[in-house]
Amino acid sequence: MTGAGAVGVDVGGSKVVAVLVDDSGVVGDRANRVTPERTTRPRVVEDVIVEAVRALVSRHDVQAVGVGAAGFVDRSQQRVMFAPHLSWRDEPLAGRLSQRLGHPVLVDNDANAALWAEHRFGAARRAGNAVMITLGTGIGGALLVDGAIYRGLNGMAGEFGHMQVVPGGRPCECGGTGCWEQYCSGKALARFAREAGSELAGPDLTNAAQAGDPVASGAFDEVGRWLGVGVGNVIAALDPELVVIGGGVSAAGELLLDPARSSLSETLVGRRFREMPALVAAELGPLAGAIGAADLARRAATGAR
Amino acid sequence: MTGAGAVGVDVGGSKVVAVLVDDSGVVGDRANRVTPERTTRPRVVEDVIVEAVRALVSRHDVQAVGVGAAGFVDRSQQRVMFAPHLSWRDEPLAGRLSQRLGHPVLVDNDANAALWAEHRFGAARRAGNAVMITLGTGIGGALLVDGAIYRGLNGMAGEFGHMQVVPGGRPCECGGTGCWEQYCSGKALARFAREAGSELAGPDLTNAAQAGDPVASGAFDEVGRWLGVGVGNVIAALDPELVVIGGGVSAAGELLLDPARSSLSETLVGRRFREMPALVAAELGPLAGAIGAADLARRAATGAR
Repeated sequence: MTGAGAVGVDVGGSKVVAVLVDDSGVVGDRANRVTPERTTRPRVVEDVIVEAVRALVSRHDVQAVGVGAAGFVDRSQQRVMFAPHLSWRDEPLAGRLSQRLGHPVLVDNDANAALWAEHRFGAARRAGNAVMITLGTGIGGALLVDGAIYRGLNGMAGEFGHMQVVPGGRPCECGGTGCWEQYCSGKALARFAREAGSELAGPDLTNAAQAGDPVASGAFDEVGRWLGVGVGNVIAALDPELVVIGGGVSAAGELLLDPARSSLSETLVGRRFREMPALVAAELGPLAGAIGAADLARRAATGAR
Repeated sequence: MTGAGAVGVDVGGSKVVAVLVDDSGVVGDRANRVTPERTTRPRVVEDVIVEAVRALVSRHDVQAVGVGAAGFVDRSQQRVMFAPHLSWRDEPLAGRLSQRLGHPVLVDNDANAALWAEHRFGAARRAGNAVMITLGTGIGGALLVDGAIYRGLNGMAGEFGHMQVVPGGRPCECGGTGCWEQYCSGKALARFAREAGSELAGPDLTNAAQAGDPVASGAFDEVGRWLGVGVGNVIAALDPELVVIGGGVSAAGELLLDPARSSLSETLVGRRFREMPALVAAELGPLAGAIGAADLARRAATGAR
């Protein structure tokens, strides 16, 4: 045994990352595995998670295990109702993993877990009411209300990416049209760049924009403008203290936040009568989801709120 | 003295209505006054409120006074920051009224007050997490979280009507464009009817639609469809147990809710994986705001939560 803490697992589209997290949010160790194809049986994905967690359990004193996944997780934090890049459908993941690992296990939506981590240890430390928007391939979202993650009736609160921003707009994987994530996400960024003649995507696009490439910068401008529109909608509804922007695309920092703040300051309802909430980049980087899942699991297991 | 309770005042665009409300939400007496023109000095509006309240105070044992107004009220429920149809700008209304009336006074946004009334005595009695949309000239909105009105940083949470649903769409009084209330409100309803050749508006339009007039029904269909779109956005963000539709336009009932439910069931994210929240008409009618304001004031004055 070289350390103690909770294990947080981030189940992403390409990687399964397990980390050991102490109660100050510090990551002590990690184990990576490759995510099985989305066509793989649920049990195989489970095997990969168990393997990654066991690697850490064999080396440390583990109290509890939290799993963050991009998908709909029920409000009891036990079942994954649907995960777009995995084969889970109404999967009792927490129960199964708990049985196999012999530890208490909790599952959460990855954006909920990331916001919890930012609230405990990062950009939302001082906020009781905050919103998180994670810009990856799509949009993830989460709400903090009075210092707790707000889950809603089905555990599906915070699906901001599927608010319609363009009537009859681009078809979305969710079955709707004109969803915000079709205009404001890594996928949208690459599309805007492609439409302007660039072949770049992901971090390459960020690097090019930071180096001053006009096509790449233009794509960030466009996504940033849509970020402002959608954040304006979220603020109109929720009037939070703070909006935290995370996910891979947020690595572009001000390239993205500048146009967002500018479109927000032009359109937000009641802007002359309100204190504007801060719009800031996440602080914890790509491990936020795993750190938050670990902390949520530790608190649930130890009875902390 | 013929009764006891709290007084609730609804300050509308045309009428100031004060009611005496007992702790079961029953209205025992009322006093109506005409709302002064929006150009009138704030003090004159205050005089009218004081007059209406005094009419009730002279006849009953009054514990506290609550005022509901269409506008931005600060989160301490003391000041009206802005009211579109009145001259108040950062007006310390609660303090002034309290001084003149000699009773504790609290101010709230009218949709917050209406949702509170529906939660205590009406359609949201059994819900802890609910959303209210009031369709009047514009859209009012409010959120109930864990059995309490959620106010946000500035007391401006629930301004759903100013979420953008059409990029570059119709200009809105708020300074934005394409706001939801431009497509889903009494004003939008009359416009849709006018564009289809009808001169009717307000209750006349509702009556015509209920009598089967195709132009009037078409206008309700259109507004109902936009209601579904916007409610879908609110549900994606908040996943509430219940959505209550109130305000004058909601008198049309199923004429409005039917098309809304149908557009909602076609587009709501994760509809195959979620329990759909009920979409229902408010139960308390036009006095909901005054009843809720009275109950909020009574509870604040007596220390009830």
